Amino acid sequence: MARVVVDVMPKQEILDPQGQAVANALPRLGFDGVTSVRQGKRFELEVDDSVDDAALAKIAETLLANTVIEDWTVRRVES
Amino acid sequence: MARVVVDVMPKQEILDPQGQAVANALPRLGFDGVTSVRQGKRFELEVDDSVDDAALAKIAETLLANTVIEDWTVRRVES
Repeated sequence: MARVVVDVMPKQEILDPQGQAVANALPRLGFDGVTSVRQGKRFELEVDDSVDDAALAKIAETLLANTVIEDWTVRRVES
Repeated sequence: MARVVVDVMPKQEILDPQGQAVANALPRLGFDGVTSVRQGKRFELEVDDSVDDAALAKIAETLLANTVIEDWTVRRVES
């Protein structure tokens, strides 16, 4: 059994309205000094040892990320 | 200028319908061996050096996470 984290973030060239909204809200709430916010998704998966890196990449690419507008990374973490 | 990652995940005892939907979809799509999926949010912030860890914790706690149902972690990453 392994623990896997998949991070999915909007590509740099893609507008990120959610992140923009957070960035705009911060000064209004009294937090200065944050110059950029980007919002993405984080998935935590528990997988059997039979699931190899190729399968994980396929899962991230086809199901968790929209590769037209998002980049993804997969990494195994110690559980 | 520093790069900060804030991870926001649903608390363990909270139902996570989005993650559940992904977990249920995987076997239908031919991916077996994934026993659990939890979906959360990942924020990437660029902050000035004037922003200290206390301010980052405050931002995560008040603006990025709903602490009733979500846990958060803040970490600085090398940019």
